[in-house]
Amino acid sequence: MPVGTVASVKGVSQDILEDLGAQIILGNTYHLYLRPGVKTVRKMGGLHRFMSWPRAILTDSGGFQVFSLNELRKVTEEGVTFRSHLDGSAHFFSPESAMAAQIGLGADIIMAFDECTEYPADRERVRASMEMTLRWAERSKQYFEEHKHEVPWNPLPAASALPDDDGERTECRQLRTGYCQALFGIVQGGMDRGLRRESAERTIEIGFPGYAIGGLSVGEPRELTREIVESTLEHLPKDKPRYLMGVGTPEEIVEYASLGIDMMDCVLPTRAARHGLLFTSQGRISIKQARYAQDPAPLDPNCGCRVCQRYSRAYLRHLYASNEMLAQVLNTVHNLSFYLDTMRRVRHAISLGEETRFLSGVWSRPKPQASNDAG
Amino acid sequence: MPVGTVASVKGVSQDILEDLGAQIILGNTYHLYLRPGVKTVRKMGGLHRFMSWPRAILTDSGGFQVFSLNELRKVTEEGVTFRSHLDGSAHFFSPESAMAAQIGLGADIIMAFDECTEYPADRERVRASMEMTLRWAERSKQYFEEHKHEVPWNPLPAASALPDDDGERTECRQLRTGYCQALFGIVQGGMDRGLRRESAERTIEIGFPGYAIGGLSVGEPRELTREIVESTLEHLPKDKPRYLMGVGTPEEIVEYASLGIDMMDCVLPTRAARHGLLFTSQGRISIKQARYAQDPAPLDPNCGCRVCQRYSRAYLRHLYASNEMLAQVLNTVHNLSFYLDTMRRVRHAISLGEETRFLSGVWSRPKPQASNDAG
Repeated sequence: MPVGTVASVKGVSQDILEDLGAQIILGNTYHLYLRPGVKTVRKMGGLHRFMSWPRAILTDSGGFQVFSLNELRKVTEEGVTFRSHLDGSAHFFSPESAMAAQIGLGADIIMAFDECTEYPADRERVRASMEMTLRWAERSKQYFEEHKHEVPWNPLPAASALPDDDGERTECRQLRTGYCQALFGIVQGGMDRGLRRESAERTIEIGFPGYAIGGLSVGEPRELTREIVESTLEHLPKDKPRYLMGVGTPEEIVEYASLGIDMMDCVLPTRAARHGLLFTSQGRISIKQARYAQDPAPLDPNCGCRVCQRYSRAYLRHLYASNEMLAQVLNTVHNLSFYLDTMRRVRHAISLGEETRFLSGVWSRPKPQASNDAG
Repeated sequence: MPVGTVASVKGVSQDILEDLGAQIILGNTYHLYLRPGVKTVRKMGGLHRFMSWPRAILTDSGGFQVFSLNELRKVTEEGVTFRSHLDGSAHFFSPESAMAAQIGLGADIIMAFDECTEYPADRERVRASMEMTLRWAERSKQYFEEHKHEVPWNPLPAASALPDDDGERTECRQLRTGYCQALFGIVQGGMDRGLRRESAERTIEIGFPGYAIGGLSVGEPRELTREIVESTLEHLPKDKPRYLMGVGTPEEIVEYASLGIDMMDCVLPTRAARHGLLFTSQGRISIKQARYAQDPAPLDPNCGCRVCQRYSRAYLRHLYASNEMLAQVLNTVHNLSFYLDTMRRVRHAISLGEETRFLSGVWSRPKPQASNDAG
């Protein structure tokens, strides 16, 4: 999922995102809550209409970003008090208010309010944090169930006015074609396999249409991330979307997909692009380097994106060196194209089936001693 | 002509410029000479190939921008010594080196090296400056005639190797389909009608395939600009392009076109867009204003551009207020669309002919006491 923090994937217009084949983008509740504000987005008909994006949107719960405001927040059982990074004003997020915000924004998939446990943390701290996230998950679900009809794009009357035997009322069978959003739960538990298992099982008990793995990519070694992802996945239902939050490099998203992850989001392709770091089929390119100043080749000869089809490395290097806005625009378009192409190849490999997927070249055959968990 | 200073119309990719119907864009020789440098552009096959722009390009002579570097330049009969605004390095532009640079860049239309006379200036100073511009025009033409075969995209052998009776050799009948660029002369003469006439007549004597009016929009009152444009046009041939440099607002470009101007360039649509000032059929809009925060209407209900067709004022206001890159991109696309639409309406009005053009609504009928110079 490309990240569109404040209802815009930085520098890329929505028609180009459509051309790139993006099926879903992510918005950040914390940022949108501060600016333009939930009230404005609700009044404009929800995020889809506000930003003119007819495809799917997922919003995070605001939790992760509030927890990133180290100096500016205070956590209690009730919720989190924090100060805006924009103007220092005081705000409060609870599971209930985070749900209210996300219902008001009206994304297709919204996330339970969780605490992203810091790393490193001792077992007691991780357990306490996990327990609070579980209580917050229950509160998130309860508030959501009571208020899910309040989405801005809801063409139907309030739930209480519906007949009781309307089976669809409490089911989110179809995104945005019905009248409610899908609320996903988030598994925490730090780097402890036991706590991860417990978090997964008790989150499943609460019951959600999809599950995310949170609290990773917070500074731990890469190998540990993989180990926790792999062990947590064993305890998540295979018939529901499994979402790994905040990863990763192109190699990582292929690897996590091979483990069974269905959804990922990361600022890497867009943020790296703005700093001139480009992902290609031949490896990473730092386009600012003088070696590209007179290079007539496309950025990636194997890429079909509108940037690689039209411009040379020399031109892209010139734009970047000259601090031209178009550098950031074109670099972002290419990196998104590369990521979305990567996921298309992953889906193709999956569609080939267990026996033949390695033929696609996306995944290498597992080494004999490694377990093959590709699911 | 949209301005693409360093081979990019800021924030707008070339395919969108094509969609907007831009037939020609302007590049600034001073900036391109400094970065990426003429040598690089030449090696990449010229500006068209370097920036992947198959339509027409005009480069200025560098004179105007060098003259804008008040503190950093020194003018002699030979040329101008100046310091780069980027790194303070010393450089020298003469009529010959400015031609060499523009031939190396390989635009379709290039400009003679002139001195843009400051305003205000006394008659003696204006005459001396005009005389130097005339001497520089001769030197520009002479250098161009001797070197015009050196364009980077020239598929033909050097002029000396061509048969003498090749009538096309010294004629620039077809832009970029032949082998030479079109070098335009520039009329100076300050705000003095007599000197403007003399400058025009003596520039025509030197002989160019097109003529520009320079040295205006340098701080003089708007009415004076119009008066000098009108009086200068009387002395320029109607069968050759007449180019007014550095104007103007949408109202002004309509007015100057009605006087007989064929070409104009201005940073106003693109620069104003980046500052949130948008031109619409209903007047100017400063999109940063809070009044647009929940306005669901398109920027301009009469505009068919991709911005007005897809986004609301509320969204554009949000992007601008959030300092999102997409604000500058979308605002620029709209303003360029508005300008190019304006010129399309002007061309349509002209095609209607002398008697009926006022029916188009682009031009109002002249007041009885005003002279009608529309040509």
